[in-house]
Amino acid sequence: MSELVKVAVDAMGGDNAPGEIVKGAVEAVNENDKVKVYLTGIPDVVEKELAGYTYPKERLEVVPASEVIETAEPPVMAIRKKKDSSLVKALNLVKDGTCDAFVSAGSTGATLVGGQVIVGRIKGVERPPLAPLIPTETGCSLLIDCGANVDARPSHLVQFAKMGSVYMEHVMGVKNPKVGIVNIGAEEEKGNALVKETFPLLKNCPDINFIGSVEARDIPAGAADVVVCEAFVGNVVLKTYEGVGATLIKKVKAGMMTSLRSKIGALLVKPALKQTLKAFDLEQYGGAPLLGLNGLVVKTHGSSKAVEIKNSIIQCITFTEQKINDRIREMLVSDVVSDEVISAEER
Amino acid sequence: MSELVKVAVDAMGGDNAPGEIVKGAVEAVNENDKVKVYLTGIPDVVEKELAGYTYPKERLEVVPASEVIETAEPPVMAIRKKKDSSLVKALNLVKDGTCDAFVSAGSTGATLVGGQVIVGRIKGVERPPLAPLIPTETGCSLLIDCGANVDARPSHLVQFAKMGSVYMEHVMGVKNPKVGIVNIGAEEEKGNALVKETFPLLKNCPDINFIGSVEARDIPAGAADVVVCEAFVGNVVLKTYEGVGATLIKKVKAGMMTSLRSKIGALLVKPALKQTLKAFDLEQYGGAPLLGLNGLVVKTHGSSKAVEIKNSIIQCITFTEQKINDRIREMLVSDVVSDEVISAEER
Repeated sequence: MSELVKVAVDAMGGDNAPGEIVKGAVEAVNENDKVKVYLTGIPDVVEKELAGYTYPKERLEVVPASEVIETAEPPVMAIRKKKDSSLVKALNLVKDGTCDAFVSAGSTGATLVGGQVIVGRIKGVERPPLAPLIPTETGCSLLIDCGANVDARPSHLVQFAKMGSVYMEHVMGVKNPKVGIVNIGAEEEKGNALVKETFPLLKNCPDINFIGSVEARDIPAGAADVVVCEAFVGNVVLKTYEGVGATLIKKVKAGMMTSLRSKIGALLVKPALKQTLKAFDLEQYGGAPLLGLNGLVVKTHGSSKAVEIKNSIIQCITFTEQKINDRIREMLVSDVVSDEVISAEER
Repeated sequence: MSELVKVAVDAMGGDNAPGEIVKGAVEAVNENDKVKVYLTGIPDVVEKELAGYTYPKERLEVVPASEVIETAEPPVMAIRKKKDSSLVKALNLVKDGTCDAFVSAGSTGATLVGGQVIVGRIKGVERPPLAPLIPTETGCSLLIDCGANVDARPSHLVQFAKMGSVYMEHVMGVKNPKVGIVNIGAEEEKGNALVKETFPLLKNCPDINFIGSVEARDIPAGAADVVVCEAFVGNVVLKTYEGVGATLIKKVKAGMMTSLRSKIGALLVKPALKQTLKAFDLEQYGGAPLLGLNGLVVKTHGSSKAVEIKNSIIQCITFTEQKINDRIREMLVSDVVSDEVISAEER
């Protein structure tokens, strides 16, 4: 039997904690025998949730924590003060090598800050990006970066493009993933200062399949597999996606309820429609990886239910088995080497 | 009879020129007797289109032009070289006071550049923003700025907030319009450098009803009437709106075609659905005004049909009758005065 992939899960984080989190962890170990879950949380609370389930005890362990970080707490302070919180405990399990990955439905800020401060960055990574998968007409794309650190530099965006390519190729199985930079026009001379500076760097980057600028209009159509942008822009894309999706579906439902005729029609189309729209639901893709850390940190929606927690845990298996972090390390080392070669040539 | 509102229209600009443009102009003068249209274009071509219609001749004039600016031409060069183009001729009609406004479905770049260079800015306006109306759950909001000039300064955004408020109040009839700044979180300390610098300026601005940060997720729900952002972000919001809308509607249609049952349902819901979704169609709102110029320039979609051209022309009547530019001038003068008072107090 190959080695188990070990995933720490914060049982106390998220709107539906601990119930849905514990349920998702149980479902993950029952569905996949390659994974072991470490549930961090208040022991009594977690044990009580577990009591009703059947699962392989040797692959689900409870790690006691006495504190809980709330969503509204200032992240840096929370990480620093609550050393015995379920979130900090889980991050430490990754730091000390007990676990390969951490899945969090709790405070986004604390997860991002804690990931960087406790787990730490891979040597050479300038800024670890948060990279959710977003649904498109043809499948899904990686939107990188949607994190909390805005005002990125061109070199950050180049690293996002590389890390995103590794992720899409080896975790999602997209061969030679297309990389695009979010821009306000297709021409190379278009864009803000950051995009204009980044464009030639991406164009000359031999490790990626750069296809140029991508207008936001073309993202939902699946124009690029790896959609590179600075975090402010990434957040705007992601949240406009969510907002327009929610509003339009509300409009469709309201439209179907306007007459008796349309109500009858609604009953008939409902099952088929539900199926199709499910493929365009942001939440089905589970968590967003925070890339470039010494270990994997996956942030799932605060509103995650068991199925999303389970999917996020399972996602960690491919990430670990495909040695994504080793690939990222190699890519960054080759950068340093080629930089040195260039400097040597210049001398 | 009150004075006519005079609108120049580029008969040669847009994907459906000259047919739909001329048709829209004819419909406008037939529908509203307060407006006179000046159609600029190649005389033979325009006259031929007009031949089939009945309309009040005294309120539709053809202004001859010998050249046409194509969408793909570099804007600055096109404006400079093609002095006898239909677009430049129309802009000059606004500049020399013959017309109050100009409606263009042609090159966005040339319209924006020409508006600034030929029509010119209102004294005190630092950057004229392009401000389309976007549909929301509750009506529509003004997204300001979506223009071609990115990397704005905080003072630009403050002017956008003021000009946008004047527009929403006096053209759209929204009393005391709510102004929000696009941000990645609701808290005041969130945001990129630009937003953090702009936030306190908006907060202390007495002329507007500032409600704070608006997350992109809440824009489609109608969280703010005036949605202030820098042009790169505005373009990303606008185009994500378009893209997600188009993809979702495609998905809904495909979903309805998956089984016999759903196909029958689709026939029943179609009329009601069409009606509801029409209210969420970006194109129904006609053109986007380029605010802060000595005259009104309205940019409509390149793909505009007659109805959009007509709506854009009619929109110019309210703008002119409500003396929006005088109101903008007054607001900016009061700024200069209060700045002087402050400086005097400081001395």
